Amino acid sequence: MSAGGGAPAARAVLQQCLRAQLQVQPAGDQSEAQFVQIDRGMVIYICFFNGASEELLQKMVSTLLNVRLCEASSGRLVSVLELPGSILIVPQATLGGKAKGRSMQYHNNISKEDGLRLYSAFVSLCEKEVATASASSSVEVKHGTYGNRQVLQLDTNGPYTHLMDF
Amino acid sequence: MSAGGGAPAARAVLQQCLRAQLQVQPAGDQSEAQFVQIDRGMVIYICFFNGASEELLQKMVSTLLNVRLCEASSGRLVSVLELPGSILIVPQATLGGKAKGRSMQYHNNISKEDGLRLYSAFVSLCEKEVATASASSSVEVKHGTYGNRQVLQLDTNGPYTHLMDF
Repeated sequence: MSAGGGAPAARAVLQQCLRAQLQVQPAGDQSEAQFVQIDRGMVIYICFFNGASEELLQKMVSTLLNVRLCEASSGRLVSVLELPGSILIVPQATLGGKAKGRSMQYHNNISKEDGLRLYSAFVSLCEKEVATASASSSVEVKHGTYGNRQVLQLDTNGPYTHLMDF
Repeated sequence: MSAGGGAPAARAVLQQCLRAQLQVQPAGDQSEAQFVQIDRGMVIYICFFNGASEELLQKMVSTLLNVRLCEASSGRLVSVLELPGSILIVPQATLGGKAKGRSMQYHNNISKEDGLRLYSAFVSLCEKEVATASASSSVEVKHGTYGNRQVLQLDTNGPYTHLMDF
């Protein structure tokens, strides 16, 4: 993990949720907008920077799904896998922004193609980890469409927002 | 602004919202929970670190309220003051967390008393800037109670999440 030293290769913001809903397809002329939804669990906003590679992904997913940020009914903090909770993955390139004057610049963000490739692999790894760890069919991994506007509704019992750079 | 160099003195996460509601008083034996709410505008999650001082606040508030992150009806990005939009300030000490193994540690976070003092001054400065900049009575600054659990409901048209370290 990039511990304050060099530039990060990826950035995640984590929020706990009771329910979260994300648009995955905007409304078209003939179609209504489509959404995915999770109940209790964790929202992972994710951004990749220049230089990020697939080798990073396993460690990222393992860290994010195993860090103890979720409040169990006992009050104890457990991981989202232990809760067990669902996961909503939100591609969020804006997390790579740096202020220059009054504008945000995204010069360190990864290219669209590489970002999509890493994002898809990240989602697949999350799905695999959750499937391996949980026998509960109520636990789901949902995710947004890369490159789209991320129309989100979030209902929390305290978002307990955390930042993790990798 | 701490541009990737030294340790930051404060951290803000910004999300755009169509509506956001935050609990400011939990339900008691004889009382219902109390909430504040804004409509279109920006949520500012804020965390102070050891070493943060009041001198930092004016620059922080000026930067956060003037950076162009809000989509005007024309599609152009403008500041929350220019939109004009409301502001919901959420104290979020968890933003100072660093992973150590599977746990989060908050060793760099400011003490509770200093944090409360800076938070209150930050809120006051935001209120002052908004009152000065906007003639619209529909523009409001609302904020959470420092030290409480931040029970949040968020409705976005794309949270467009940004991180700013100071």
